[in-house]
Amino acid sequence: MRDENTRLDKLVQRIGPLDKQAMQTARERENHLTKPPGSLGKLEQLAVRVAGIVGHGRPRLQHKAIVVMAGDHGVVEEGVSAFPQSVTSQMVYNFLAGGAAINVLARHVGARVVVVDMGVATDLAPHPDLVIKKVGHGTGNITRGPAMTREQAIQAILGGVSVIEAELEKGLDVVATGDMGIGNTTPSAAIAAAITGRSPAEIVGRGTGVDDVGLVHKVSAVQRALSVNRPDALDGLDVLSKVGGFEIGGLVGVILAAAAYRKPVIIDGFISTAAALVATQIAPHVRPFLIAGHRSQEKGHQIMLDWLGLEPILDLEMRLGEGTGAALAMGIVDAACKTLDEMATFEEAGVAGRV
Amino acid sequence: MRDENTRLDKLVQRIGPLDKQAMQTARERENHLTKPPGSLGKLEQLAVRVAGIVGHGRPRLQHKAIVVMAGDHGVVEEGVSAFPQSVTSQMVYNFLAGGAAINVLARHVGARVVVVDMGVATDLAPHPDLVIKKVGHGTGNITRGPAMTREQAIQAILGGVSVIEAELEKGLDVVATGDMGIGNTTPSAAIAAAITGRSPAEIVGRGTGVDDVGLVHKVSAVQRALSVNRPDALDGLDVLSKVGGFEIGGLVGVILAAAAYRKPVIIDGFISTAAALVATQIAPHVRPFLIAGHRSQEKGHQIMLDWLGLEPILDLEMRLGEGTGAALAMGIVDAACKTLDEMATFEEAGVAGRV
Repeated sequence: MRDENTRLDKLVQRIGPLDKQAMQTARERENHLTKPPGSLGKLEQLAVRVAGIVGHGRPRLQHKAIVVMAGDHGVVEEGVSAFPQSVTSQMVYNFLAGGAAINVLARHVGARVVVVDMGVATDLAPHPDLVIKKVGHGTGNITRGPAMTREQAIQAILGGVSVIEAELEKGLDVVATGDMGIGNTTPSAAIAAAITGRSPAEIVGRGTGVDDVGLVHKVSAVQRALSVNRPDALDGLDVLSKVGGFEIGGLVGVILAAAAYRKPVIIDGFISTAAALVATQIAPHVRPFLIAGHRSQEKGHQIMLDWLGLEPILDLEMRLGEGTGAALAMGIVDAACKTLDEMATFEEAGVAGRV
Repeated sequence: MRDENTRLDKLVQRIGPLDKQAMQTARERENHLTKPPGSLGKLEQLAVRVAGIVGHGRPRLQHKAIVVMAGDHGVVEEGVSAFPQSVTSQMVYNFLAGGAAINVLARHVGARVVVVDMGVATDLAPHPDLVIKKVGHGTGNITRGPAMTREQAIQAILGGVSVIEAELEKGLDVVATGDMGIGNTTPSAAIAAAITGRSPAEIVGRGTGVDDVGLVHKVSAVQRALSVNRPDALDGLDVLSKVGGFEIGGLVGVILAAAAYRKPVIIDGFISTAAALVATQIAPHVRPFLIAGHRSQEKGHQIMLDWLGLEPILDLEMRLGEGTGAALAMGIVDAACKTLDEMATFEEAGVAGRV
């Protein structure tokens, strides 16, 4: 266990500040491109930030990966989801077959989908594209006790780190986070309530679509999870282990590794942002590496974004997860970097400047 | 002239309602795809609307064009722009060389750029990719008289229509509007004020970046344009001819033709939306064919969107024109149709439905 702790500590210590020189180079180039300065709005800000993340004044995002982490949740016993737990594994097979929304959107933006079993309740059939980092067969029911041990939380995070390390070998310029796990809006809401200090009633939403009775169940489940487990808001590992999930832990690892290896990481919606909250409690320096992909329709997402100080790129009233919002946002971030890289300057194009 | 009037009337009469059967087919498919119903938010709404526009329950947007219309404006004499008039033609050459923001973003979304000279002040050097539909060498100064005659307004619109008819020959599934014209936020603001009835001070913005003095000039220029010309808000041709522009007229033609030939048309920012206002006054049935690409940073854009009842897809604080916001939105609309078309159903994927 000491080895794992050391490995996580070393990774966290690798996370440095943004490269100000690269950002300055990017900003100067933006001001010479054939457009009124600032007129590409957030595209310019994104390109400059990516420059600072990767440490290059003209970044190109050629190799793209969307990491979809799957896990199951003991709390589904409490009737918190509109879909049965079997859907988690069925959707993993759908990802592997290329038929899910994330597959379509990943193809659309030219990204590969990396499907990871972090803790699905059943053992999945082997598949050449399925990465196994299984920490357990579903978490404990957080309304009755912790989701997992602290050791398992670290194992989940390091599983995510090793996924990114393997992807780096294949070439990786930008990563997006995605999730699959029936019931996982409940632990995500518990994480959000624990870390932001806001009440479960403000944060809990309908997930895949519970009705009014289901919503009351969910709020109650989150309240009980917090009072039974009493997570320490300032200790990210404590929050993750007590009220989190295996796939959420994996995403924490993805986020920390992306920052440590200086790759922009595009955060999807409710579950991914809960992982970002945990990552930020473990390593506050991770924050400038995070790009919020979209604003989810799930109720408490805005509270989490506000706490992180992140402004999402898209607001398309989506609430699917899987990394779908992040995938679309990845297309926008890519476009932002392309305008910085590929546009002609006033001088190159022979265009006059301001009068 | 009677022939031109007849041609425009016939086109307007072609514009029919959305295909409700195709929309119903699309909606039913959305509800069988492997996701909680409605969880793709605006993507689902967009895909269903495109189905209604093209009259097919599973539309594919393979052939994409962004029509960038260029024109000059007599009103630049009044000091309403931060850039000299020569930039209009210089930017047209930049478009033809592939170095402008719209070229980068069009490549990014897989669209072709169609560059049209609707009324640049100078005669442009011939180029195989430059479409010439020149109505005049810049408009009249709208603070002193009309921008153009009513005949020229019709000619500009029909020029846009013929651009779309030529593009249809090459294959066209979706079109986006774009503009280039130093000074053209001023006539666009005048159109918006005339048609929405709101005051110039509420609508006029900084365009390419005029300072406070320039802004006062612009508001005054729009006020004088309206009081000198007294456009009839209910007569789109009157508004266009008195306070419009040649490229704006061309875009009116693009919009009307897209609706007449049942292709979705993605409206860019301030100038394109002014063209949409005129198109809607000429043919109210055009409205359901319009997809607002983005919310521009230019001040009065929201007023125009509200008047049209359109909710933009993106809000990236952009204010460049050229069709840049519409190009990025085209990628989202394409993604929306792909999810509808390519995702597996619950049955196909063997995924369980709701409990």
